[in-house]
Amino acid sequence: MQPTTRVTFLAGDAGEWEVSASRAIKGAGLPDAPRLARLEGAAATPIGAARWALDGVRSHERYTSAMERRRMAAVQEGLGRAASTLAALIPITKSAAWWKLAQDERRALFEETSRHIAIGLEYLPAIARRLYHCRDLGGEFDFLTWFEYAPGDADRFDELLARLRATPEWSYVEREVEVRVFRSTG
Amino acid sequence: MQPTTRVTFLAGDAGEWEVSASRAIKGAGLPDAPRLARLEGAAATPIGAARWALDGVRSHERYTSAMERRRMAAVQEGLGRAASTLAALIPITKSAAWWKLAQDERRALFEETSRHIAIGLEYLPAIARRLYHCRDLGGEFDFLTWFEYAPGDADRFDELLARLRATPEWSYVEREVEVRVFRSTG
Repeated sequence: MQPTTRVTFLAGDAGEWEVSASRAIKGAGLPDAPRLARLEGAAATPIGAARWALDGVRSHERYTSAMERRRMAAVQEGLGRAASTLAALIPITKSAAWWKLAQDERRALFEETSRHIAIGLEYLPAIARRLYHCRDLGGEFDFLTWFEYAPGDADRFDELLARLRATPEWSYVEREVEVRVFRSTG
Repeated sequence: MQPTTRVTFLAGDAGEWEVSASRAIKGAGLPDAPRLARLEGAAATPIGAARWALDGVRSHERYTSAMERRRMAAVQEGLGRAASTLAALIPITKSAAWWKLAQDERRALFEETSRHIAIGLEYLPAIARRLYHCRDLGGEFDFLTWFEYAPGDADRFDELLARLRATPEWSYVEREVEVRVFRSTG
């Protein structure tokens, strides 16, 4: 009984989200597309013609401690809030040097040095986040991170990204794409 | 550039290894088959008619610290030694309760409580081991572990398995199958 859940991000002519901007932060970008769909779980059925598709899996946490998880659980809110009309998909690939590190070395860079969890906590519950893993699936990226927030929190979202990208952990990121979307009212 | 490597264990009429025994340790077993092939990497091409196939990926280490890795690297030897005419494939699934634990809780059960790495180290270099991950692939098992050893170390291999199965970590194992094989000389 596998409790992991598959996700497919499908960019094309259909989907709940309209793409406002797509840019390569580091390395190669992704082809432009007018819309994006996040298809999670068994109910996920591809729709329309796809420009690109990225698969991931909602899996167990790799670095978060029990105490950190309790702190997050106390303040975080789910995806799908009515006020969250803005969202972003950020696919990331880390370097071979990162993956060659031992678990304690990766954890130290992730949190003790770069404060990845602590920084994210400062933006909860405003910036809701869901991480999907795809490195073991053998795709182009290692992670797909999905963020949802209200227009009034757009500046804070930009600030969150800038802070994370300035961390030592980010020196191990060799490819990063940012796809900004808004909830289609059509 | 994904440094992960896919593996397929293929049980059927062909393959380098002859099956001497296959038994369910916990939960459902796997169908009987006369031979087993371990097909790793790009050169892997399925051969013959398959009774069952299990896919995995050689990925980064999830719990091993840098110091533990150095200790292992100092003594371990690779797969494929001429004297290693015996081998075993042990597919394992851990419970939902295991995967709900935070990283520090899983690490504590894995090593500080159950001494999984320390126990394995005592059997190096005699018992060579390679771990493949498959939980994120969505298959029947979470891990596929492959062991190779010489006939003179068969008793020590049984001892290693008995010690691991007696650990608190193993109370989270909900399915385990043991497929014993020997190198075919035909």
